[in-house]
Amino acid sequence: QGGRLHWLEDHCLLEYGTVKIIVIRNKAVGSVFRLIQFLIILYVIGYVCVVRKSYQVKDSVISTVTTKVKGTGFTNISGLGAHVWDVADYNIPPEGESSFFVLTNMIITPNQMQSSCPELPDQSTICMSDSDCTEGSSDVRGNGIQTGLCVNYSETVKTCEVLSWCPLEIDTDLPENPLLAAAENFTVLIKNTVTYPKFNFHKRNILPDVNSSYLKQCEFNRITDPHCPIFRLKDMVAEAEEDFQTMATRGGVLGILIDWSCDLDFPEHYCGPKYSFCRMDNKNPENNVAPGYNFRFAKYYKTTDDVETRTLIKSYGIRFDVIVFGTAGKFNIVPTIVNVGAALTILGLVNAVCDWFLLKCTKRKELYQKHKFDYLDETNLKDGESVSELPVYLLYQINVTKMYHG
Amino acid sequence: QGGRLHWLEDHCLLEYGTVKIIVIRNKAVGSVFRLIQFLIILYVIGYVCVVRKSYQVKDSVISTVTTKVKGTGFTNISGLGAHVWDVADYNIPPEGESSFFVLTNMIITPNQMQSSCPELPDQSTICMSDSDCTEGSSDVRGNGIQTGLCVNYSETVKTCEVLSWCPLEIDTDLPENPLLAAAENFTVLIKNTVTYPKFNFHKRNILPDVNSSYLKQCEFNRITDPHCPIFRLKDMVAEAEEDFQTMATRGGVLGILIDWSCDLDFPEHYCGPKYSFCRMDNKNPENNVAPGYNFRFAKYYKTTDDVETRTLIKSYGIRFDVIVFGTAGKFNIVPTIVNVGAALTILGLVNAVCDWFLLKCTKRKELYQKHKFDYLDETNLKDGESVSELPVYLLYQINVTKMYHG
Amino acid sequence: QGGRLHWLEDHCLLEYGTVKIIVIRNKAVGSVFRLIQFLIILYVIGYVCVVRKSYQVKDSVISTVTTKVKGTGFTNISGLGAHVWDVADYNIPPEGESSFFVLTNMIITPNQMQSSCPELPDQSTICMSDSDCTEGSSDVRGNGIQTGLCVNYSETVKTCEVLSWCPLEIDTDLPENPLLAAAENFTVLIKNTVTYPKFNFHKRNILPDVNSSYLKQCEFNRITDPHCPIFRLKDMVAEAEEDFQTMATRGGVLGILIDWSCDLDFPEHYCGPKYSFCRMDNKNPENNVAPGYNFRFAKYYKTTDDVETRTLIKSYGIRFDVIVFGTAGKFNIVPTIVNVGAALTILGLVNAVCDWFLLKCTKRKELYQKHKFDYLDETNLKDGESVSELPVYLLYQINVTKMYHG
Repeated sequence: QGGRLHWLEDHCLLEYGTVKIIVIRNKAVGSVFRLIQFLIILYVIGYVCVVRKSYQVKDSVISTVTTKVKGTGFTNISGLGAHVWDVADYNIPPEGESSFFVLTNMIITPNQMQSSCPELPDQSTICMSDSDCTEGSSDVRGNGIQTGLCVNYSETVKTCEVLSWCPLEIDTDLPENPLLAAAENFTVLIKNTVTYPKFNFHKRNILPDVNSSYLKQCEFNRITDPHCPIFRLKDMVAEAEEDFQTMATRGGVLGILIDWSCDLDFPEHYCGPKYSFCRMDNKNPENNVAPGYNFRFAKYYKTTDDVETRTLIKSYGIRFDVIVFGTAGKFNIVPTIVNVGAALTILGLVNAVCDWFLLKCTKRKELYQKHKFDYLDETNLKDGESVSELPVYLLYQINVTKMYHG
Repeated sequence: QGGRLHWLEDHCLLEYGTVKIIVIRNKAVGSVFRLIQFLIILYVIGYVCVVRKSYQVKDSVISTVTTKVKGTGFTNISGLGAHVWDVADYNIPPEGESSFFVLTNMIITPNQMQSSCPELPDQSTICMSDSDCTEGSSDVRGNGIQTGLCVNYSETVKTCEVLSWCPLEIDTDLPENPLLAAAENFTVLIKNTVTYPKFNFHKRNILPDVNSSYLKQCEFNRITDPHCPIFRLKDMVAEAEEDFQTMATRGGVLGILIDWSCDLDFPEHYCGPKYSFCRMDNKNPENNVAPGYNFRFAKYYKTTDDVETRTLIKSYGIRFDVIVFGTAGKFNIVPTIVNVGAALTILGLVNAVCDWFLLKCTKRKELYQKHKFDYLDETNLKDGESVSELPVYLLYQINVTKMYHG
Repeated sequence: QGGRLHWLEDHCLLEYGTVKIIVIRNKAVGSVFRLIQFLIILYVIGYVCVVRKSYQVKDSVISTVTTKVKGTGFTNISGLGAHVWDVADYNIPPEGESSFFVLTNMIITPNQMQSSCPELPDQSTICMSDSDCTEGSSDVRGNGIQTGLCVNYSETVKTCEVLSWCPLEIDTDLPENPLLAAAENFTVLIKNTVTYPKFNFHKRNILPDVNSSYLKQCEFNRITDPHCPIFRLKDMVAEAEEDFQTMATRGGVLGILIDWSCDLDFPEHYCGPKYSFCRMDNKNPENNVAPGYNFRFAKYYKTTDDVETRTLIKSYGIRFDVIVFGTAGKFNIVPTIVNVGAALTILGLVNAVCDWFLLKCTKRKELYQKHKFDYLDETNLKDGESVSELPVYLLYQINVTKMYHG
């Protein structure tokens, strides 16, 4: 056993093999070599270290958002009368999650009841007699189940009668100006807590240097109040380069993007939220089926006779989606070694390029080839014979062999 | 200074070191070498370039979804009478977000009031006398707070009385066929706008070549209308290989997957949505606690005496989750260099393999070893002495040394 | 053509170039070389294979969550009377999605009607006469639209009158103990189905070895019942190191994290959900604007005179966000080759380090340099001349050249 260990020590631990180098004093090749080396080191520093920050471990953000809208609006719609709207009325869903909707325009159809009434006139619903209507049929684009009767819709038009919530909603006369125009002055408080679990980093968008009295009266402004988490709806829409009143008429979707990308090698207070705003739906007027954003909901009541009635509201408004994203990085020795090491191995490719240049493009290429290559010809060589220095041919093969020796 | 610059120029910029190569004319080794080289280049092209598209920068999709369901259904439930259901009734939540629910089956308990009534009979609630009931106790699986009395549930069974919304819901007699069977013909319009911020690429699922009149009457069909964004509920469920009526009875969750993966090196119009559908919950009948999908909600009313009543609805139905995903890539010079370069360095490993083959498996291995290695023996060598060409032993060490010279 | 093929065969397929090696018997260099090699191989095995599992293809989880809360609570609020709360009352939104809210505390303002009443007293609303109030003005932090009148709020204070839902909510007297303290014993059933599409892997958190009778009565406990998908609210809050009653008073957000990270090289039953819980919002008492979590919603009624009234509820409670995450990996030959190959190329850097050590730090460095380098001096060399063995200078350049020969 001792002998074996000794043998191992002799041949395995004591020896070191290093490649034999031919140093060539050639200004052109030397310059090309240094230039490429320089470029690669520049890339390693520039791309790997500065742009990609490959010396860092990364983590993705985990985020919680709560929102709270404030403000009151006033409408005076014929049939409904004067009405003050507060947050419980116009903020749907009420839960204050990361996506919230502010009602700005609406078509209200009060006092609907389950009964039968003439369908809205339309190519497929206009009828001359009962035979044009089919009892029990229901068009997916219609408003109810046909009773089979043909009744007067107006003095001139007859349509098929349907079982439905009557009277039917007439959704063609949407107010041209948003009823709740005052919504542009509503504000929203966005509370956002983020966590980078790998770094045990927790922070919220209400920064530590902001005090309560400031928060009671501040309002976000990119220049004067960049850390205030209270946003006026109009300002957000304006930052997305839209007009609030135009957008409010037919509705839309606005993204509130909060970017928490951080370099945690810097002190913690450099890591803060960066807000941006953009319209998420398409406002393109051409090819615009069902433009904007709207949905229908109803409030249900019971009359004194225990009959269910409802108020149907086709509500137009702006849906605000709070989208939190970001990646944090922090120095760590493992990815540093891995990435810088991997990048440096590319330096090996430099030699392939320079060898090609040296053996193909220089005047003395034959001389260089002669010194670089020793030929061991199997067909005419015997054991113990000395290496024959064969004449050198400019072979495609040699260059290829060189290419990948790096 | 001039001298130093000159010195640098002499030794740093003018010189180029290249390794000394022993070229061996051996058919076997040559073939193995070329074969492995070929395989690696194939891998670089095939995997790095074609499969992974490593020459591209990537970006993840940011997406907004709005949905709108259309259609009316009709039910005739005993106690409730004929009732037409429209979107405001069966679509919950009404907001038209990326997840929406269509009610298909239900258990309705109308006219509930805060009062006391016998608990539903069950192992823990059946009682013989008041002493079996505990005033104020509340079982998490029960329906209310016990009053401490034991009252008749039916003529034969007595149960503990509870304070609750009475009468209690009896949720065992779920209709075997979905009440709102007509829901299979409802349609949903899905509007989806995606953004790849890195490439400033915006597109929506309503493609530019689709006009308004087409959209008013089209319906998605994988063969005839693959670009229509209006989907019939039945078709979506069928694509997920489920039966609508079966799924509608107990409810379920259906995923609408929209894949926006794009190669932006191709013209923009090749980048479009690819729809697929799959059932997201488990329909496995074995081990099926609380199968399907249902939840309870209530509509609140007030009687003329100002007493609050409610209609409790245990609603079964299909929740549709629109899931948008995808990655886009575009050619960029930086990742191209990085990835192709890194892949090519693997070519260096070829030499390790071939050296091992050459020095271990060929007949003339000793000859090759003699020419490949020059031994510099430290113990018996003096400065200026010539290199002793030691006899070559087939050593494990040599192979290892070779392995990593690449 | 035959000739060309023959030529190719001769020079391309039959030849193999291998680098000439100088083997140095030096204990120090040999040891350093082996040590670094050992470290790198350790890294390849340790980091690449064990930590990163780079031999696997990865996939991200696609998940569906449904939730169902159970339990009843009892309150006896002055003005509202005894009231039993069931899931339809306190669970908002009712849909059973991955985020659900349990009401625990509230300020109820019943019988609000559209009318006018004095604004709540506050710096900006207290007035002496009508001239202090502006008709039509509306403060974003106020409760309505000013009528322009200054009226008695109490016997001593006068405030501007506003059009609003009156009487106004007085939200300063929040009960110090949560009204629905019983909520801590409510339970929630979480059904979670996950899919790893690349591996066609589907699983749910209700494991196959769990039977229905067990599920009817079990409750999650990290030690005794780690696979039960039914969670008591109090236990979840306790696991997040919070006190339920404290958190319930002002509300908060609790994250239910389900980790599905799996190594699919192991049998499927090793892949299961790992639950953890943490508070997502900030409970920090300092700098705490609008602490906790609350929102307002209203129930709308109509009186017999067809006037709309509402009950406004400012509801405090705990929002539970179910967050599902995870990555699965499975062995695949392609990433194995790629990553192990790439890692091994770093071995080439070892030689750079050892060459530097050998030629710079050893006693016999000049001897080694002499044997390692052959100098081809362009300026005084003619074709056919023998290589001049130039005296070796210890040059910075040599080391640099060495550095990157690997």
